[in-house]
Amino acid sequence: MARVLLINPNISDSVSDLIRAEARRSASPGTQVDVLTAPFGVAYIETRFEALLGAHATAQLAAQHCAAYDAVVVAAFGDPGLPGLRELLPVPVTGMTEAALATAHLLGHRISIIAISQRIQAWYREVVEGYGFGGRLASIRALDRPLSSIGGVQEEHAQALRALAEKAVAEDGAEVIILAGAPLAGLARSLHGQLPVPVVDGVSSAVRHAETLAALQPGRALQGSFALPPAKPHKGLHPAIAALLDRQPR
Amino acid sequence: MARVLLINPNISDSVSDLIRAEARRSASPGTQVDVLTAPFGVAYIETRFEALLGAHATAQLAAQHCAAYDAVVVAAFGDPGLPGLRELLPVPVTGMTEAALATAHLLGHRISIIAISQRIQAWYREVVEGYGFGGRLASIRALDRPLSSIGGVQEEHAQALRALAEKAVAEDGAEVIILAGAPLAGLARSLHGQLPVPVVDGVSSAVRHAETLAALQPGRALQGSFALPPAKPHKGLHPAIAALLDRQPR
Amino acid sequence: MARVLLINPNISDSVSDLIRAEARRSASPGTQVDVLTAPFGVAYIETRFEALLGAHATAQLAAQHCAAYDAVVVAAFGDPGLPGLRELLPVPVTGMTEAALATAHLLGHRISIIAISQRIQAWYREVVEGYGFGGRLASIRALDRPLSSIGGVQEEHAQALRALAEKAVAEDGAEVIILAGAPLAGLARSLHGQLPVPVVDGVSSAVRHAETLAALQPGRALQGSFALPPAKPHKGLHPAIAALLDRQPR
Amino acid sequence: MARVLLINPNISDSVSDLIRAEARRSASPGTQVDVLTAPFGVAYIETRFEALLGAHATAQLAAQHCAAYDAVVVAAFGDPGLPGLRELLPVPVTGMTEAALATAHLLGHRISIIAISQRIQAWYREVVEGYGFGGRLASIRALDRPLSSIGGVQEEHAQALRALAEKAVAEDGAEVIILAGAPLAGLARSLHGQLPVPVVDGVSSAVRHAETLAALQPGRALQGSFALPPAKPHKGLHPAIAALLDRQPR
Amino acid sequence: MARVLLINPNISDSVSDLIRAEARRSASPGTQVDVLTAPFGVAYIETRFEALLGAHATAQLAAQHCAAYDAVVVAAFGDPGLPGLRELLPVPVTGMTEAALATAHLLGHRISIIAISQRIQAWYREVVEGYGFGGRLASIRALDRPLSSIGGVQEEHAQALRALAEKAVAEDGAEVIILAGAPLAGLARSLHGQLPVPVVDGVSSAVRHAETLAALQPGRALQGSFALPPAKPHKGLHPAIAALLDRQPR
Amino acid sequence: MARVLLINPNISDSVSDLIRAEARRSASPGTQVDVLTAPFGVAYIETRFEALLGAHATAQLAAQHCAAYDAVVVAAFGDPGLPGLRELLPVPVTGMTEAALATAHLLGHRISIIAISQRIQAWYREVVEGYGFGGRLASIRALDRPLSSIGGVQEEHAQALRALAEKAVAEDGAEVIILAGAPLAGLARSLHGQLPVPVVDGVSSAVRHAETLAALQPGRALQGSFALPPAKPHKGLHPAIAALLDRQPR
Repeated sequence: MARVLLINPNISDSVSDLIRAEARRSASPGTQVDVLTAPFGVAYIETRFEALLGAHATAQLAAQHCAAYDAVVVAAFGDPGLPGLRELLPVPVTGMTEAALATAHLLGHRISIIAISQRIQAWYREVVEGYGFGGRLASIRALDRPLSSIGGVQEEHAQALRALAEKAVAEDGAEVIILAGAPLAGLARSLHGQLPVPVVDGVSSAVRHAETLAALQPGRALQGSFALPPAKPHKGLHPAIAALLDRQPR
Repeated sequence: MARVLLINPNISDSVSDLIRAEARRSASPGTQVDVLTAPFGVAYIETRFEALLGAHATAQLAAQHCAAYDAVVVAAFGDPGLPGLRELLPVPVTGMTEAALATAHLLGHRISIIAISQRIQAWYREVVEGYGFGGRLASIRALDRPLSSIGGVQEEHAQALRALAEKAVAEDGAEVIILAGAPLAGLARSLHGQLPVPVVDGVSSAVRHAETLAALQPGRALQGSFALPPAKPHKGLHPAIAALLDRQPR
Repeated sequence: MARVLLINPNISDSVSDLIRAEARRSASPGTQVDVLTAPFGVAYIETRFEALLGAHATAQLAAQHCAAYDAVVVAAFGDPGLPGLRELLPVPVTGMTEAALATAHLLGHRISIIAISQRIQAWYREVVEGYGFGGRLASIRALDRPLSSIGGVQEEHAQALRALAEKAVAEDGAEVIILAGAPLAGLARSLHGQLPVPVVDGVSSAVRHAETLAALQPGRALQGSFALPPAKPHKGLHPAIAALLDRQPR
Repeated sequence: MARVLLINPNISDSVSDLIRAEARRSASPGTQVDVLTAPFGVAYIETRFEALLGAHATAQLAAQHCAAYDAVVVAAFGDPGLPGLRELLPVPVTGMTEAALATAHLLGHRISIIAISQRIQAWYREVVEGYGFGGRLASIRALDRPLSSIGGVQEEHAQALRALAEKAVAEDGAEVIILAGAPLAGLARSLHGQLPVPVVDGVSSAVRHAETLAALQPGRALQGSFALPPAKPHKGLHPAIAALLDRQPR
Repeated sequence: MARVLLINPNISDSVSDLIRAEARRSASPGTQVDVLTAPFGVAYIETRFEALLGAHATAQLAAQHCAAYDAVVVAAFGDPGLPGLRELLPVPVTGMTEAALATAHLLGHRISIIAISQRIQAWYREVVEGYGFGGRLASIRALDRPLSSIGGVQEEHAQALRALAEKAVAEDGAEVIILAGAPLAGLARSLHGQLPVPVVDGVSSAVRHAETLAALQPGRALQGSFALPPAKPHKGLHPAIAALLDRQPR
Repeated sequence: MARVLLINPNISDSVSDLIRAEARRSASPGTQVDVLTAPFGVAYIETRFEALLGAHATAQLAAQHCAAYDAVVVAAFGDPGLPGLRELLPVPVTGMTEAALATAHLLGHRISIIAISQRIQAWYREVVEGYGFGGRLASIRALDRPLSSIGGVQEEHAQALRALAEKAVAEDGAEVIILAGAPLAGLARSLHGQLPVPVVDGVSSAVRHAETLAALQPGRALQGSFALPPAKPHKGLHPAIAALLDRQPR
């Protein structure tokens, strides 16, 4: 009976709705799934600077609400703030990129990522390489047209996205496809059976892996670089963040 | 209601019992878990040549029995035959190393593997590097004493194994520990709360990830290098393998 | 006559004083050097989560003040927020780690970093690897005793730091030493002639390289992943950040 | 007066004939060269699963016959079972890929491989990367038409293969070409003088390097991961394999 | 008041003139800049063998003249002899490739190099990879037409060079451009404001970084692999080289 | 009936004698083996600068004498000038490091190098990494005592060298040992049967591989980066080098 909190690091409620719908469809029976939207930031994170903003907003929400959940998910591809949150939070935390890679890793060797904007590709690549998955990345391919509405990308561009996936298989040697970005949540489900290789979605992967972490209870880091940051003076922090930092040393 | 088949590529029934016990403890309610033991091979796979034997034995069992399951697990660390089976079988297949790495990837950056023999380390390292996880491997540490019985490693060497894990954290910078090898199935559960970083077990990881693959239904490879091998003449193969190879081209 | 702004992403005025002193000693004649201290955050950044906080604080200060400068320096080793700031700011920006690596790269092949806390090492390693310098890293070595005052680390631990540097040369094959962390600003100067290999300091490197970027005027990114983030809705951002994001598209 | 045994891991006698012809043309005066064909398996190995089958067939033949030879060659590109056989056999063993890479390494830095089917490329790439030669691989290029007869590939497709090699030089920066796959044995000899860079053939490389290993007598591994697998219970193995595993511990 | 000696490892005085002009434009007020031309060698270094010749010529000039300078620059892209000279000379030494990479590293993540001949690309790539910058190289692109005069490349091919840079940005993801080769010295300055990403020039980078090394005085290597080669018998060396090798052991 | 020329890039006749003896012992019946000693340079190459000198001396000898041989060997570990010579010479050329790695690659995965001085290790590592073999290097270990005579290293230090090899196997996971440096030529032969893993010698490997290249006749590079350097003005070169550079374009 896991309780999973997904935090949308963007300010778009329409994307949070897509996330919520796919998360609930993917969850095991009995799992409680909630989605929160960033109180500040931008409509859609495509760059390193926007991720910097989203990371702080996510941290504030996670600090305020994590006590009521068994696991937390950073619900944007690119996982803004994830490594830092893993130090701070008392519960397991994962992100859409990290979780999608974990699933894709079980389905094939070379992975392609289909994204919704040209600009987003460099940042995605850096995140994937930071996770050590650079050697398994066949390609990143992306839409090259402006998006009229971030909540409606799937309907508007479904055929173009599918064509990008097919090109990744035929030309880049992709053995698995990840449909990247919360605005595409649920598209893997719609494309079921229409692509020549397995297709992975970040939201459903993250929910399922969060459930697994809650069930296996691997334990929290008490030493090493994912333990709680050392106690030290701070100022001006959100009270919920301050409270987590001030927990008793372990 | 996933049905998961675990195949022990070794001939040791005592190890199959350990696998079965941990697999059933770890499975979600309603999941059916069965374990089969290799009909030929060695008592415990520590080397590349022994893995070559175990791979063929696993393939024969998998071919015979996969039709009754939603997912198959190669239940030896090192995953003998896994990439080949992914081409052959009509259902998702994973292995203990691959699955443990997927879980560890969600818990920390640098991963150490604790193993039960000195000899086994070189082979494990090659498998981990083959999966592209070499950059995240903090170390492999192993027992250096002979094992009196492969089914009794946990009881006999629990303290030594725990000490190896602690050294990996303190000296190698491990942020997650994987207890490797089917003979250690269940040990992570016993050590819960006794190690300073999260601990991952291959059997429970594999069962949970197999359930996830069965639930998410990412689709089978119809193109690319994990599609069924091209139809061609063969001879002398186990009938179940021959039948799978002779499926209609897609 | 470059004007260089250094931003201390930590809240410690005593460290800002060390930065200011070394920056002014290192600057070319005529260069204007100013140092600002983060308005919120922690006393000393050692972890990924603390860097997440420092990145946002640095972004706010940089956005408010960059118009009066020719270059900006993120004045903490680890460079919190640097890649994002490079997208946002209209002037060149560098950081202590990036700049120290650029200098060390000109002095030898294998580089060791001497740091002031055990905990800080994992984060430093990830930053260095993210810059693609992992192959040139001989080692990171760090003090293993608690620091009584962050502004007095140099006096208190000078001998221990020097001993760490000597070990890095003798045992790790270091051909250049970087003394890492703003609290060590100036120590390279004091140790001049006492170490058997060249010694690099982050503050002086960053000031000099900032001057070079101001002088060479290589131009700003108008395309690619370091151009200004695409215009889009936002909310709740610091007005100076919002103003920079809302600049006319180029 | 070396005696070299080449084992074709495929069931195709026509390919064994090609191997035998090229091996005998390439061998030094006085070298005895014999070729055996796999008793079970497929007509031509293109995939990981087919390699799994060929590895076991090769192991059985090698175990039965190695006592009469000074060196053994796995005579299929991709080297099915090679690392395991190196543990098992009392004589040196190499394979067509490994040997071709050793030769190509002496002739240029960036190497392209010309292969006979699209499907085979992913497996070849994994093998080359497993040998640590990924950084020297310029490209793999392959025929994209069905093969009417595996023994007649050279005649049927000589011009297409030559065109692929020329493209690899002109577009991929290849400085050496490897013509891959036993069905191409001898083609390098026919193309002599027709390509703008050196051309390497797996069979002739393997025969020559096998002679070199027999002559230099570098010694057998008695420790480390290529020593004979540790003595342990086994069952159901081919008697010749069992006999080799049961040799006295060294 | 740094004194910087640039050595052109080629025999072309016209290229030395280009180097001198750009070096003097780029230097800080008060810096003395001199340029010498190799006494033997080829007109323009494009290959490993030509670099071998240029390295020795550069060493002879550097040994003869270094006593009068605070820093030395190997003024050819590819840096012939640089690592060796760093062992030999009593003053800091850098090269055009190394220095351009240090600057580019401060301006973006993925770097493209624009070169003046097809042949030169393989050598450049090996040099960049040898510096550990392979992971940051987006591409190398080069003119494919013969050069009528090495001193007039800029005028003759300015538009083609600019088009190559634009392709590197648009197709290869370049975030910074390096205009490579001493014959292009000064072109970055002429193209200022005409390219969509920052542009880096080797000569100006090298002069500025040489000034920085002279100012920061990081110290000379007395141990490790960049210390003076151990004293030992020699014969037939240029007297200036012999004198430097025979300095008292430190 | 191959004719092989080995060039000692050092000025030590005693080392040339060791090379000659081992080369003749290792050669096939009928192979002609000659050894020449560098006319200028140092007694023993341990550093990058000494290699720069040795490269030029080797080039002069090779250019003068190559017409009478089927293959040339750079007979110093570290292979001074090898990549450049491959462009220049009309016959195949290899070096002791390259050839030893080719042999070791056929005998095990992880390779350790035993060297005769501490200082030499950094240079060896860079050469091995430049060949792309960094991932297979288990360790480099070296004598740490001064050598009383370069021609008598083997006798004086045989036990210490053997102990280093044993440590490399036991502590570094070496699966093959390379005894590095021409002064150790022949030692692998003396240690036969005394080490627990295969042992490789550079001179015998180079002679055998040179014979193989002469026999297989893979062809010369007419395009790509190992073709003859483009025709262009030069001055002051050794006449034999000039003559090779001025060959008719192909």
